[in-house]
Amino acid sequence: SSIDKGKTLVEKANCAACHGANLNAPILPAYPKLAGQYPEYLYYALRAYQVGNSNPQFGRNNAIMSSQSQPFSDADLKDMAAYIASLPGNFVVKK
Amino acid sequence: SSIDKGKTLVEKANCAACHGANLNAPILPAYPKLAGQYPEYLYYALRAYQVGNSNPQFGRNNAIMSSQSQPFSDADLKDMAAYIASLPGNFVVKK
Repeated sequence: SSIDKGKTLVEKANCAACHGANLNAPILPAYPKLAGQYPEYLYYALRAYQVGNSNPQFGRNNAIMSSQSQPFSDADLKDMAAYIASLPGNFVVKK
Repeated sequence: SSIDKGKTLVEKANCAACHGANLNAPILPAYPKLAGQYPEYLYYALRAYQVGNSNPQFGRNNAIMSSQSQPFSDADLKDMAAYIASLPGNFVVKK
């Protein structure tokens, strides 16, 4: 996966509009923080939103995230996950 | 919500078996870190797993999380969310 490509795609999708600065300060408390999650989980969640109700065994149904995830290829989602996982200053270990 | 009650319930459910120490070190990269998420999001996600495919418009289908969430009342889930959100050392702001 390409973190650089992922950064471009995440900015294009304007994920920060809801998930906040560094994708770590959601604008609503019902939205998750994303930065620092494992890339595999982020990819899983993005793919689940993309699939949505077309496969309720796997998909997650969410109006916003469904439309947000639709434009992207599988490789795009993996790049985006790699970038989000790389964001610093979030899931750090307490000192 | 009661953080203390939530702590007891989270320990009873053994969430750390998968989500790791302080619920911030998942044993598999496909699992999310939880500590420090907003309680509203944590409650939303727990409730979505509990609902599952009985309402695919809202539910999230996941075999493990479905069985994990089934035993708990709505108040329990809110207490658990409050406790998990309170866990330190995770989604901290970078200094």
